[in-house]
Amino acid sequence: MKKADLIVAASANSADMLYACGFVAPDPFIYFSGAGETGIILSALEQDRAEKDCRPEVAVYGRDEFSVDEKAKSIDLILALAQKYDFTGFRVPGDFPLKLADELRAAGMTVTAEKEQFFPRRQFKSRQEVEAITDALRVTETSMRRAINIIGEASIGADGALLWNGGILTSELLRSEINIEIIRNGGMPDHTIVAGGCQGAEPHNVGNGILYAGQSIIIDIFPRMSSTGYWGDLTRTLVKGNAPDILKKAFAAVLEARERAKELIRPGAIPAEVHKFANEILARHGFLTGRQDGRNFGFFHGLGHGVGLEIHEAPRLSPVNHEPLKGGEVVTVEPGLYYPEWGGVRLEDMVAVCSGGCNCLTEIETVLEID
Amino acid sequence: MKKADLIVAASANSADMLYACGFVAPDPFIYFSGAGETGIILSALEQDRAEKDCRPEVAVYGRDEFSVDEKAKSIDLILALAQKYDFTGFRVPGDFPLKLADELRAAGMTVTAEKEQFFPRRQFKSRQEVEAITDALRVTETSMRRAINIIGEASIGADGALLWNGGILTSELLRSEINIEIIRNGGMPDHTIVAGGCQGAEPHNVGNGILYAGQSIIIDIFPRMSSTGYWGDLTRTLVKGNAPDILKKAFAAVLEARERAKELIRPGAIPAEVHKFANEILARHGFLTGRQDGRNFGFFHGLGHGVGLEIHEAPRLSPVNHEPLKGGEVVTVEPGLYYPEWGGVRLEDMVAVCSGGCNCLTEIETVLEID
Repeated sequence: MKKADLIVAASANSADMLYACGFVAPDPFIYFSGAGETGIILSALEQDRAEKDCRPEVAVYGRDEFSVDEKAKSIDLILALAQKYDFTGFRVPGDFPLKLADELRAAGMTVTAEKEQFFPRRQFKSRQEVEAITDALRVTETSMRRAINIIGEASIGADGALLWNGGILTSELLRSEINIEIIRNGGMPDHTIVAGGCQGAEPHNVGNGILYAGQSIIIDIFPRMSSTGYWGDLTRTLVKGNAPDILKKAFAAVLEARERAKELIRPGAIPAEVHKFANEILARHGFLTGRQDGRNFGFFHGLGHGVGLEIHEAPRLSPVNHEPLKGGEVVTVEPGLYYPEWGGVRLEDMVAVCSGGCNCLTEIETVLEID
Repeated sequence: MKKADLIVAASANSADMLYACGFVAPDPFIYFSGAGETGIILSALEQDRAEKDCRPEVAVYGRDEFSVDEKAKSIDLILALAQKYDFTGFRVPGDFPLKLADELRAAGMTVTAEKEQFFPRRQFKSRQEVEAITDALRVTETSMRRAINIIGEASIGADGALLWNGGILTSELLRSEINIEIIRNGGMPDHTIVAGGCQGAEPHNVGNGILYAGQSIIIDIFPRMSSTGYWGDLTRTLVKGNAPDILKKAFAAVLEARERAKELIRPGAIPAEVHKFANEILARHGFLTGRQDGRNFGFFHGLGHGVGLEIHEAPRLSPVNHEPLKGGEVVTVEPGLYYPEWGGVRLEDMVAVCSGGCNCLTEIETVLEID
């Protein structure tokens, strides 16, 4: 009765797979670890590259070492693997594909989906991992500076529309310039948010159309570094020219919530309590949370989330996470306020939880108005 | 005994989910269809946006309509859904997460993983889908032209290295310029390949380091359009200056294989036979396939693959696919030759299978040498 860990996924999409083997591949392959042996099984197409790039402790096998049949599917290869090492069961990640699990069970294997994280140590970052995340964050900041510079360079048209580089400045154009800066610096953009005015009231609205002076522009940038697979995450809320009073008040509230929440983040802190504390600060500034006419308003997402090989990973700084921080986590701190009538404000930094507190990894300043 | 279709996934990552609801979201949510009702269930964070962007036939529900408990997990929501509509079982995609499936089964539900495609009609494209794919391909071609222009503008240094824009032209720089062109045109690059010289012998090597005159440069570009989620796919093999004879011969063989394979593609054609036919043309030109000293050489990947909301989807034009084409599929045709001693040649077009044959969607020319 020997059990092994088993993952079947593309490491380009699966953080667990990338963490396990350190090798980026766009198509699914097999990882196993058990009976003193750790290895991957993949197609001839990837074998040469894997042998160079894989973690040294992970053995690389071609599919043909487990089946000479070129039609062999994952199930065939895994059963051949089980036979070779006498495996009778597998521990697999919670997102393991059901079809393959059912095939393995039908062949007499036990397959146990991990209920928690497959590699719990993934949320506690090594020094090298914090460096890789910091590198990603620096690229994120460089692209935010590009956005700030463009808004600074923009002039204001008769109707308040921002004008830049001989044309109208839209969310699409500013996003494109941000994403280009990310690409130039070795990152890959994801759904970069540039949400102007009332679009900012929807936290996941990526934004479109003309940007105007005197309205909030929420810019949320989260690129992944192509070389390491680690992510950065950064949000600022900017106004070209003078911000209306409501925006200044919301900005002050969110900034205070972010800074004071950071002061609470340390080993032993309870994420739900930190979230609640931030929410109380916002309420004390007069910004309440609720739902009206079918729309949410106020602060209706979690305060933050872990960042690593996934953009959203454990631990969540959410009202339902009562598991104390332990030290070594890298998390975002990103309170926000959202009101359909005027838009939103979100300010996001990243911190590494360390002995007695946390280190803020984010260096870029937090400003509202851009001249 | 009522059964429903069920998907739990992020539509940004799951082509089935995007196909089902037409709404791009970065975090997992629930889709169901059964008992005359089709809907999605998602967090407050996404609800407003979903109500605007979702397909009109898909109803949008907030999580709070199925559970007032803010800690409610997918399992809780799905069980509440099952109770509301009297569902006792679900058909789910093959990649449905095992942990959730086991939870549903433990609660008495039947969960059946689809062994084939969840939406078989996804491989037969509507006119609108072919247009969306063609739009993506045009952006792909625009970025390929950028690469061709840069190689054309480059001069040749004393050691044969390409010089461009005051510096050395590397794979990384050329990839960055290609990816920037994609971003400027509304697409999102994936792992764009710019593989020079012997790196081209590994089909998935993205390439790195200095590019040289007189060596093959394989450029494989496959961006996804941010607005629609559809992909384009294009490969060319280029040489700055004069190509060595072996490259000219391989180019002629691959080009003939591609063009003659296209002539066979039509409703009723067997993918495995088209692949075999292309392989025979390559062999007739003297390019054999095999494995030596632990490395593959020749033509060792499939001739092509379907393209749509996934970059690799059904049908595969592979030696193991004996299912006849039916018409409406959009597939790549991309024979290649790879030899560790000198590198590789791959030439890829996209075609739409139509009545009596196929339409080539790719317009950009196929050339080897760039002055």
